[in-house]
Amino acid sequence: MIKYSNGLTYKKSKTKLSSNKVAFSFSSANRGMNLEEDIIQSNEYYLRNKMALIYKRPTPIQVVKVDYQKSPKITEAYFSEKSTTDFNGVYQGRYIDIEAKSTHSKSSFPLSNITKKQFEHLENVIEQGGLAFFIIEFVKHAKTYIVEARQIIDFKNNEERKSIPFAQFEEIGREIKRGFSPRLDYLPFVDEIHRNS
Amino acid sequence: MIKYSNGLTYKKSKTKLSSNKVAFSFSSANRGMNLEEDIIQSNEYYLRNKMALIYKRPTPIQVVKVDYQKSPKITEAYFSEKSTTDFNGVYQGRYIDIEAKSTHSKSSFPLSNITKKQFEHLENVIEQGGLAFFIIEFVKHAKTYIVEARQIIDFKNNEERKSIPFAQFEEIGREIKRGFSPRLDYLPFVDEIHRNS
Repeated sequence: MIKYSNGLTYKKSKTKLSSNKVAFSFSSANRGMNLEEDIIQSNEYYLRNKMALIYKRPTPIQVVKVDYQKSPKITEAYFSEKSTTDFNGVYQGRYIDIEAKSTHSKSSFPLSNITKKQFEHLENVIEQGGLAFFIIEFVKHAKTYIVEARQIIDFKNNEERKSIPFAQFEEIGREIKRGFSPRLDYLPFVDEIHRNS
Repeated sequence: MIKYSNGLTYKKSKTKLSSNKVAFSFSSANRGMNLEEDIIQSNEYYLRNKMALIYKRPTPIQVVKVDYQKSPKITEAYFSEKSTTDFNGVYQGRYIDIEAKSTHSKSSFPLSNITKKQFEHLENVIEQGGLAFFIIEFVKHAKTYIVEARQIIDFKNNEERKSIPFAQFEEIGREIKRGFSPRLDYLPFVDEIHRNS
């Protein structure tokens, strides 16, 4: 398994196609079980019930070569560095931006999980009056929190530590209860922040 | 030149690399000269001046095979159908969604330029209180208009015609003046709609 700066993990499939080509599958192993999928399923629930419209951003890919023999087939391309976040969309007219992170650390959430470009993007969102959040999963605790991005940015700017203690998430964030549908009902917290700002 | 349902046009380069591989270049030929680039440059201007944060969505690509020999190289992938729009972002806290289209027709803008999925997406945006727009360029007239998506949706739902007459854009939209920086100053119209809704 290989981890990349864009936060995705790629797993080699068992189906070997040739010496240097392997079947490709996205994996969310670095995000606990299925954090990204759980958020996507929750977003589908919100959309079905006309509560919010939050989308997964496509993975940015730089295309180099395309084969036009039949339908266009990309034959050379590369993953670009992620300069924004995982999700964005609209809730009651308000712009919403969400980055999802999962950590296997028991004690704290390492800020190194967030790139400089992502911090800049989140600061821009806040400056324009949008609402920006992190959904952070502590895999070993089986707990997932939603936190305003502002809180994480403040910690980064004001504290010496390079990671936020697990215990602090109870103060700065809200634990998201897991359910069947939506699997991660994070919208009540978004609603609360929206009403108060 | 080949046109696809995702609104992009791919041009074969003159540099032939092998019998069935050609160098790849994005082209905005189906969007007049540079409609997309002009909007991106304008968005950069708005961001620099802290007026708005509007991003180009990455082109959705379905990755099938990756070569892991050195850094990961995608060796097989396909363009997915575009189910959303070209741009989204935030202005004064409000969610903004924009689709850019260019037409070479002199007489009218053909609604066939907009996919069913895009109409659904825009209806969802409006339902959630976001602001949705089209930026439409009439290449032969050298004129570019910004129109609320609602107007285009209403036309589609209530009129028999499958295209919107050019003359009607003076009523339903606003001509965007071309300049040096920003090249297409569309934000004043967004501001006006935001204030009135």
